[in-house]
Amino acid sequence: MHIRSALVAGTALIQTAVANSSSVHAKNVIYIVPDGYGPASQNMARDLASLIETGTTGTNPEIHELPVDDLAIGRVRTHSANRMITDSAASGTAFAAGHKSYNGAISVTPEGLPVGSILEAAKLKGLKTGLVSTTSISDATPAVYAAHVANRGSQPLIAEQELGYSHPLGPMVDLLLGGGRCNFTPRGAQGSCRSDDVDLLEYADSQGFTVATTRAEFKTLEKAPLPILGLFNDGSMRYEMDRRIEQDEPSLLEMTQTAVNTLHRATNRRGKGFFLMIEAARIDHAGHDNDPANHAHETWMYNDVIAWVRDWIDSHPDTILLSAADHETGGLTLSGYDPLPLRNTTHSRAYLQALWDADRPSNEAEQRVYLVSTILPLAGLENASDAEIDAILAASSIGSGVAALLSSRAGVHWSTGGHTSVDVTLHGYAAGRVKRAALRADLAGGWDNTELPRYIEAVLRLDMDGVTRRLRRAAEQDDSWLGASEVAKRDLGDHDHYH
Amino acid sequence: MHIRSALVAGTALIQTAVANSSSVHAKNVIYIVPDGYGPASQNMARDLASLIETGTTGTNPEIHELPVDDLAIGRVRTHSANRMITDSAASGTAFAAGHKSYNGAISVTPEGLPVGSILEAAKLKGLKTGLVSTTSISDATPAVYAAHVANRGSQPLIAEQELGYSHPLGPMVDLLLGGGRCNFTPRGAQGSCRSDDVDLLEYADSQGFTVATTRAEFKTLEKAPLPILGLFNDGSMRYEMDRRIEQDEPSLLEMTQTAVNTLHRATNRRGKGFFLMIEAARIDHAGHDNDPANHAHETWMYNDVIAWVRDWIDSHPDTILLSAADHETGGLTLSGYDPLPLRNTTHSRAYLQALWDADRPSNEAEQRVYLVSTILPLAGLENASDAEIDAILAASSIGSGVAALLSSRAGVHWSTGGHTSVDVTLHGYAAGRVKRAALRADLAGGWDNTELPRYIEAVLRLDMDGVTRRLRRAAEQDDSWLGASEVAKRDLGDHDHYH
Repeated sequence: MHIRSALVAGTALIQTAVANSSSVHAKNVIYIVPDGYGPASQNMARDLASLIETGTTGTNPEIHELPVDDLAIGRVRTHSANRMITDSAASGTAFAAGHKSYNGAISVTPEGLPVGSILEAAKLKGLKTGLVSTTSISDATPAVYAAHVANRGSQPLIAEQELGYSHPLGPMVDLLLGGGRCNFTPRGAQGSCRSDDVDLLEYADSQGFTVATTRAEFKTLEKAPLPILGLFNDGSMRYEMDRRIEQDEPSLLEMTQTAVNTLHRATNRRGKGFFLMIEAARIDHAGHDNDPANHAHETWMYNDVIAWVRDWIDSHPDTILLSAADHETGGLTLSGYDPLPLRNTTHSRAYLQALWDADRPSNEAEQRVYLVSTILPLAGLENASDAEIDAILAASSIGSGVAALLSSRAGVHWSTGGHTSVDVTLHGYAAGRVKRAALRADLAGGWDNTELPRYIEAVLRLDMDGVTRRLRRAAEQDDSWLGASEVAKRDLGDHDHYH
Repeated sequence: MHIRSALVAGTALIQTAVANSSSVHAKNVIYIVPDGYGPASQNMARDLASLIETGTTGTNPEIHELPVDDLAIGRVRTHSANRMITDSAASGTAFAAGHKSYNGAISVTPEGLPVGSILEAAKLKGLKTGLVSTTSISDATPAVYAAHVANRGSQPLIAEQELGYSHPLGPMVDLLLGGGRCNFTPRGAQGSCRSDDVDLLEYADSQGFTVATTRAEFKTLEKAPLPILGLFNDGSMRYEMDRRIEQDEPSLLEMTQTAVNTLHRATNRRGKGFFLMIEAARIDHAGHDNDPANHAHETWMYNDVIAWVRDWIDSHPDTILLSAADHETGGLTLSGYDPLPLRNTTHSRAYLQALWDADRPSNEAEQRVYLVSTILPLAGLENASDAEIDAILAASSIGSGVAALLSSRAGVHWSTGGHTSVDVTLHGYAAGRVKRAALRADLAGGWDNTELPRYIEAVLRLDMDGVTRRLRRAAEQDDSWLGASEVAKRDLGDHDHYH
């Protein structure tokens, strides 16, 4: 942002407001969760992009804004009910349903009681709803919006609730796009991770969902009516840097475009709009992997999605955007950052590890040749020294050795393979200076993560507590859908097991 | 902040604005620099304070806001002209004068040309001005507001300019409170670090300054007229945790109160107000020392100062507050944070090291007894195990061993003894909902550090470029005051030498 344009806002804003007399209500809300995106993630991605774009280096850096930069408004506290450092489930429960709970909880209280989510409140008020993620659509961050179970690990149960198969209030989500197909296919089917015969793809089809499981089928979704279920990987979808080369899955940006356009088409001529949650899930995974170029590429994709949604809102000003991470991952600090060693890395650590595991020769001397000729060029490390190659071969895995060398060369430091408790940045956008000014005036400052859905509730004029009451009445009749048997297994401990 | 009160702002704001038709102009600006305060510093301090206050622990944390939390507005980029990671001089030159320069520059461009500061522009417009710091008042962060030299190490030159002794435009600062007396006393005087006979305390006295050098004299400043010079330590003032026990220096809060009250008294009946810069300098020093409890205590004092200034503004609404760090120090991450092991630490690492250096017995066995009986209780480490005591005795210094053990117990990680390049948080405050909303609307988003003084320039209706022109005309006549001979020695390299 430039001061001069801000000053125009500062001086002209209030006068303009006189004419418009606006306040922050909206027809649609798009909420974007960059999972595991911490304060330094944006710096790492921005500086790498800037030096490449401007042809400068760390001794004469010319740094340009990325789209997310201009949307910063405030900070969010993320501790959970039982840990200083949250996992995505507890933080998601806070963001989605406004309650502090324990690490591992999917929209249930510490006592195991269900709490209604902003998405459910939207659906029950007649809005259309959507969930998009680059990881399993039944993983914690999307799950908290449309499922209530004691243990985030119960993904088969979560998948059932997300489709309405076992949700006590019926189907809550009109559009689901992401990974995690394995929880929707019956045992015995290729890639299934269910232990029963429930076939949720077939169930979805029987309920009128348009179901897509390939990139080719994804393209047909552009014209499909709601409801929609698109699952493009048995597990997490590909990292963006790998996907760009493999081209066999839609990108997060493509899924975002399809989701927004479809939800808009379904609500355009109605008084009631939509609530859409989009998760840039794999910033977190790259952080857990301490994989620096990958973390930057995932953060770029998050910036690309934000930019597209921001521009879409400019032409659909009855929509507001909020975005905040659930927590930071990796303990990333830029203690001697030189971005340029990351510029030629084209594949994730995980991709290179899989390549190594599948294709490496059995003979040690040939393994070294394979590493140097095939693996290292994909990591942008063609010029590794003999000592560096030795270190990679001696590391606990090839992938960790490659990621450690890249981090060392780029002067970035990771303090953990888990999460940290630093505040995350709150971002927001509304179209037009007056509405944007009101949003900023409302949301600047420091927030507990449980407070944010209450803002969306007010913006969309919803009733989350009413949903909670309905869920609890249903649970009094029959609580088998809550995974009550899982309560005993709920996580009260190590956050490092989770994402 | 609570959503309900924010919503009241959101819905009522614009209507209220109709009646007031305000925009962000002010009579006074107070700018607070928490040197070396990064995104995680606030978490560390807040969580420690909260657990102590609420009696909770890391497994049932109840976390309360600190005063700074609610003032977050945006983020600031901090890279310098020649490094991804800035020092306080380059970042200070950006904040004070709006120009990117090299690490080590004191309000000069990379070519060594002077650039006018916001404080100089205020003074030349007829406002009163002040600088307050807990480190040397001629160190980089205060220096950039009233001095122009090629090398931040030239503190004797900087001290001269700050008093007007050699500033080409005369005395620019009406009130100076802090440390660094050694640069103001002539060689041979106790504690001097000058190599010449210039006696700036005597000079100040001759120019009508009220001069104070002790806590007792500080108390007399409450009623003194401007100009005022208070220097309470030859070098940096004490860390707050040590000062609280020694009681021989004023605190940053006390200096802030005196500065604000004195500047206000001098301008209360005039149309022109004041510009005051306050530096919470030693957050940075505790970060360089990787000294966790000390870092938290210095951050608490920053929060105390912010709270007092915020409340003062509520009763003096013609004032705005801005606050942002110059950079992060220490690469602090909270990778497994448990604050409570820090609760009984009463002294800084530096204090304990000095005690050890001065008083330890010569005999090794007695040294161990001295460590356990005298040093460790002051660090809150009475219960150190034999192995932990061995590790402290084997560390590069007792101080580093103590700080490392405290950090390890508290689950905090430091990635460097220098700075990092993560964005810092921008904070701001104005009295009244309408003006505060306008400030937030103006300043939310991402900023380059050079943009911020331009905002203050507009708020106070100043002319920084006019000051630059006057400084350059003066330099064309005679540039000896610029320390041109120091240009060759300017830092183009290692940020770790600097604070």
